[in-house]
Amino acid sequence: MRITRVKHADGTVTAARIEDGAAVPVAQEKPAYMADALRDLIASGADLSALPATGPTVPLSDVTVLSPLSAPQKIICIGLNYADHIRETGLDTPQRPLAFVKTAHTLAGPYDDVVVPAGATEQLDWEAELALVIGRPARDVPAQRAMEHVFGYTAANDVSARDAQFTDGQWFRGKNFDGFCPLGPWIVTSDELGDPHALAVRARVGGETVQDGSTKDMIFDVPTIISYLSRYMTLNPGDVIATGTPHGVGMGRSPKLWLKDGDVVEVEIEGVGTLRNTVRFA
Amino acid sequence: MRITRVKHADGTVTAARIEDGAAVPVAQEKPAYMADALRDLIASGADLSALPATGPTVPLSDVTVLSPLSAPQKIICIGLNYADHIRETGLDTPQRPLAFVKTAHTLAGPYDDVVVPAGATEQLDWEAELALVIGRPARDVPAQRAMEHVFGYTAANDVSARDAQFTDGQWFRGKNFDGFCPLGPWIVTSDELGDPHALAVRARVGGETVQDGSTKDMIFDVPTIISYLSRYMTLNPGDVIATGTPHGVGMGRSPKLWLKDGDVVEVEIEGVGTLRNTVRFA
Repeated sequence: MRITRVKHADGTVTAARIEDGAAVPVAQEKPAYMADALRDLIASGADLSALPATGPTVPLSDVTVLSPLSAPQKIICIGLNYADHIRETGLDTPQRPLAFVKTAHTLAGPYDDVVVPAGATEQLDWEAELALVIGRPARDVPAQRAMEHVFGYTAANDVSARDAQFTDGQWFRGKNFDGFCPLGPWIVTSDELGDPHALAVRARVGGETVQDGSTKDMIFDVPTIISYLSRYMTLNPGDVIATGTPHGVGMGRSPKLWLKDGDVVEVEIEGVGTLRNTVRFA
Repeated sequence: MRITRVKHADGTVTAARIEDGAAVPVAQEKPAYMADALRDLIASGADLSALPATGPTVPLSDVTVLSPLSAPQKIICIGLNYADHIRETGLDTPQRPLAFVKTAHTLAGPYDDVVVPAGATEQLDWEAELALVIGRPARDVPAQRAMEHVFGYTAANDVSARDAQFTDGQWFRGKNFDGFCPLGPWIVTSDELGDPHALAVRARVGGETVQDGSTKDMIFDVPTIISYLSRYMTLNPGDVIATGTPHGVGMGRSPKLWLKDGDVVEVEIEGVGTLRNTVRFA
């Protein structure tokens, strides 16, 4: 199953299964702050593939595909999880999964513009990542059972202002400008995706391939990440974990390549889909 | 006005004004994941002092006072914001507000136990902080208008596992164990608190005073913090900003003092109230 959130022509937002290039609405989202129809469906534990349609099926061309989630409790990112990416950053290899976080205000749809305030960064970078979405609460879960807590997978662009990131030392600000987490275009459920450890992870800037890695090269795999984090904190339904980016970010190139106004950045995760976001400097 | 969330004898949770030592319920919270009655009231923009009671007034002794918020979008913490605290950490003085984040899974009530998983940390520390709560969305707000975006103030304990914090370098894990953000006991609105820059900030461990600072010594004051963050990210209703801790944390003492099972930690913010949490190692 593929499922996400879509905005209809009348302005309403629904969670919707994606079937044969069309959106099958399954739950309407209240137009309220922190409302998130898909998060709540996931948290309900219901079999979403069996939910009856709540309205007519609509061709994808007639809706706006939104980020699958709008208000997850947390978006945990794993830094430095690919050896060839660690080399390009010049940073040390972590001895355990290195976690930092984005919060929900950073979420952007799969085709939204990423709008950066004037003067806020001169070093705007991309990071293509496979992201997983938690289905069932996970607290102190052994790795052998961790996959039971995964609802599905989606694509994330961990957009980063490198100057802010490294000036602060703490990565929060540089990773958390508004719109710095394009996500989607949908969540592919675990049963449909299968093994998440053999997927191509690609990024393109202006059509040119800049990242071309594989999730088989993760240092800490999905069950290890979930088990590890769950020792310290409860992972809750709808929580997103972005699993790190492979080699090929702008800061790792020579000369360094920073995103500029009008650049189109694509993030493609094999078996999931493609984000396509245009950078705008306000 | 003082307002928070309380749990009643029948298990229901309401937002409630605190008046004359009693709770006046003003909105019932749905028993749903990520529901937060007070966050939604703040986001509504209504005059909460004028909301009619939705049930009988109950003495505080007959309810459990909860964290004022349960699911804010983000809890931003400002690190290294007092000169005497910077000296005790041995870290460099930030040239701009240094932000990191806790997410909502860390929230604990003002009198809850802080339960730490066995073996997860050997360096458990406290940080008494004045926290502000955003009332109106703030995006690119000048400092002169920043205070218009503050709903009120509360007390926070930025509980920290120093080994996890400094092993990772990124502070997310060490600051984000479950329950590492006791908050409350209520929010005192801006009109009632007045100037937030002349308040005593104290911590006690087992009754002994360990922190005794004043918000007048903040390096970056409240309007500066709000204005600065709002250049990069939208601050939303119910968002919490913990404004940093003064001198006297456990890692700054000689010998260092780490919290142990059974320790009672109190955080007192003048004009706001006192948190009282007992540490339990599971």
